[in-house]
Amino acid sequence: MATIDTAELTDIAFGAAVLGTGGGGDPYLGRLFAERSIREHGPVEMVDLEKVPDDAVVLPVAMMGAPTVMVEKIPSGEELRGVVRTVEARLGREATHVVPIEAGGMNSLIPFAAAAQLGLPIVDADGMGRAFPELQQVMPSLGGLSATPMALADDKGNSVVLDTVDNVWTERLARALTVEMGCSAFLANYAMSGSEARAHLIGGTVSLAARIGATVRQARAAHRDPADAALDVVDGRRLFVGKVVDVSRRTTGGFARGNATVTGIASDDGATLELTFQNEHLVATVDGDVLAVVPDLVCLFDVESGAPVTTESLRYGLRVVVGGAPCDPRWKTAEGLRLAGPSAFGLDLEYRPMKGRRR
Amino acid sequence: MATIDTAELTDIAFGAAVLGTGGGGDPYLGRLFAERSIREHGPVEMVDLEKVPDDAVVLPVAMMGAPTVMVEKIPSGEELRGVVRTVEARLGREATHVVPIEAGGMNSLIPFAAAAQLGLPIVDADGMGRAFPELQQVMPSLGGLSATPMALADDKGNSVVLDTVDNVWTERLARALTVEMGCSAFLANYAMSGSEARAHLIGGTVSLAARIGATVRQARAAHRDPADAALDVVDGRRLFVGKVVDVSRRTTGGFARGNATVTGIASDDGATLELTFQNEHLVATVDGDVLAVVPDLVCLFDVESGAPVTTESLRYGLRVVVGGAPCDPRWKTAEGLRLAGPSAFGLDLEYRPMKGRRR
Repeated sequence: MATIDTAELTDIAFGAAVLGTGGGGDPYLGRLFAERSIREHGPVEMVDLEKVPDDAVVLPVAMMGAPTVMVEKIPSGEELRGVVRTVEARLGREATHVVPIEAGGMNSLIPFAAAAQLGLPIVDADGMGRAFPELQQVMPSLGGLSATPMALADDKGNSVVLDTVDNVWTERLARALTVEMGCSAFLANYAMSGSEARAHLIGGTVSLAARIGATVRQARAAHRDPADAALDVVDGRRLFVGKVVDVSRRTTGGFARGNATVTGIASDDGATLELTFQNEHLVATVDGDVLAVVPDLVCLFDVESGAPVTTESLRYGLRVVVGGAPCDPRWKTAEGLRLAGPSAFGLDLEYRPMKGRRR
Repeated sequence: MATIDTAELTDIAFGAAVLGTGGGGDPYLGRLFAERSIREHGPVEMVDLEKVPDDAVVLPVAMMGAPTVMVEKIPSGEELRGVVRTVEARLGREATHVVPIEAGGMNSLIPFAAAAQLGLPIVDADGMGRAFPELQQVMPSLGGLSATPMALADDKGNSVVLDTVDNVWTERLARALTVEMGCSAFLANYAMSGSEARAHLIGGTVSLAARIGATVRQARAAHRDPADAALDVVDGRRLFVGKVVDVSRRTTGGFARGNATVTGIASDDGATLELTFQNEHLVATVDGDVLAVVPDLVCLFDVESGAPVTTESLRYGLRVVVGGAPCDPRWKTAEGLRLAGPSAFGLDLEYRPMKGRRR
């Protein structure tokens, strides 16, 4: 059990954005939002996944949409309470814990705002160990849990409850609604018991994010390279360093999709890296060689500041370190790859596990 | 109070398709569906709108989507019970009556199927006195009633409950869902009390449909013109007779939209009529002169059979009588025209009430 106050949020948001692999929302906005709620309602208790009681009602809360749009919309907070209350009404039980469903600058922090507002503890875990763009791409799906009843709400006051035949249908219907809602919506879904949470969530993701943030902070103070320091915490490694020379992006079907070209500098002078993203960075290739691909983590860092680079902040001239890190081993199973491997994103290549530093 | 058995359904479906002005679904499928439910569960009691008790819970049920698609999907019936039960659960009260929300070959008959399955009476009324393509285009909207809580379900087992800030948002979100659901979905919305129903529904629409059907049947037997006989019942008149020479249609945004060109025959030889539709026939013009435009009824009949021609059955070579009939006077108010007049459909023309036979 740890108490998270506003002081801890900066490290968590930074580290979550690293794990978010370019998606999961803007860490600055995520932190501001959680900070406001904690200032108003007090700090949040964070409990270990192993300590959650069997009969707990653990409720993930998140934002859905294209991060490009989220940047322009700051949530009011009412919507968060709304989606939680809506799912509770359908379950006939009150939530006892909230939890992030993914790691990301926004979606790791939104649950802190909800926890503060509702006076509930947060579970130190998440459903992916990283961020993925689609609702069904979570460990609870692999475990056979249903995403519904799911509540979705927008900033205008519209609210929807979904009950679907499977989690891919949840994604389809919720995505269509999110697009109509202006490409940004709040949600609560995958309500689960404490024992289901222990079986199907990834423990320690929030404290891992905090550790990444703290390590980078200390590295900066000691004039060590922040990207290498961050990658070291997640058993990852530096793959490439270069300058962004081309970004093509489009917000279609409720996603921020696109490609970027990075020309090598320093040790990578003369080489060119190609990047593909759908909310998250999906694959990094150099001259056709895959350096890292989903479900492994492709993480970009600003060379100057060491800050993680979200897909919507990619821009011409930015100098970036491209790093990679191995995903949770459960994503490497046949079912895991079917749900969140290259083919799930229409990428015509085979998954080869990237080698981490210490694995 | 009247008892509606399978024998009555043919006339009702025929007349409802006339009032549906080309939309509201296929009368043949609508009749088959209601017939199956009545055979299985017994006949349906139909009560006058004036006789519905103040504290009744009157629930409209319908299908939503592009009629072009509905033709290819025959509903199972489970979905209807589902949407009614879902709204009941949200209201905390059971429906006491069902009612059609619009007049149409499918949407006047669907409530009979629901009434039979649920053992509830049907109210002899509807929310439009005709068919309109969008959810908010009903008298209850003019009366300030909310469309939500609204239940929407598809044939696969997906189910959604909507709560929106206004009825235009209900339409937007429900339409996006319907498109994802395959352009065809079941719904229950605009739950209202008996006193609200009396204030905001149009009484007698089902029996008017039955009267149109019966009159045409008798006219055919007596070798009188069926289109003229039908138009006479709704105070309408024949505007044009011709042959369809061009149809352009597209199913976009969840609607069947398009245009048709009809070249005059017999008394209209040499003239050309242009028709625009969005699920329903919206406007009929000859050389730029508007013969009839929404919210007035534009009705097409097959010259041979006198059968109403739905927008999805328009095809090259079909010889049609184009008729018009005045809408309910409440649609002619400023608010009525804002909701369902030419400008609501993006038509750049002013509404001029068409003159009926006897008005």
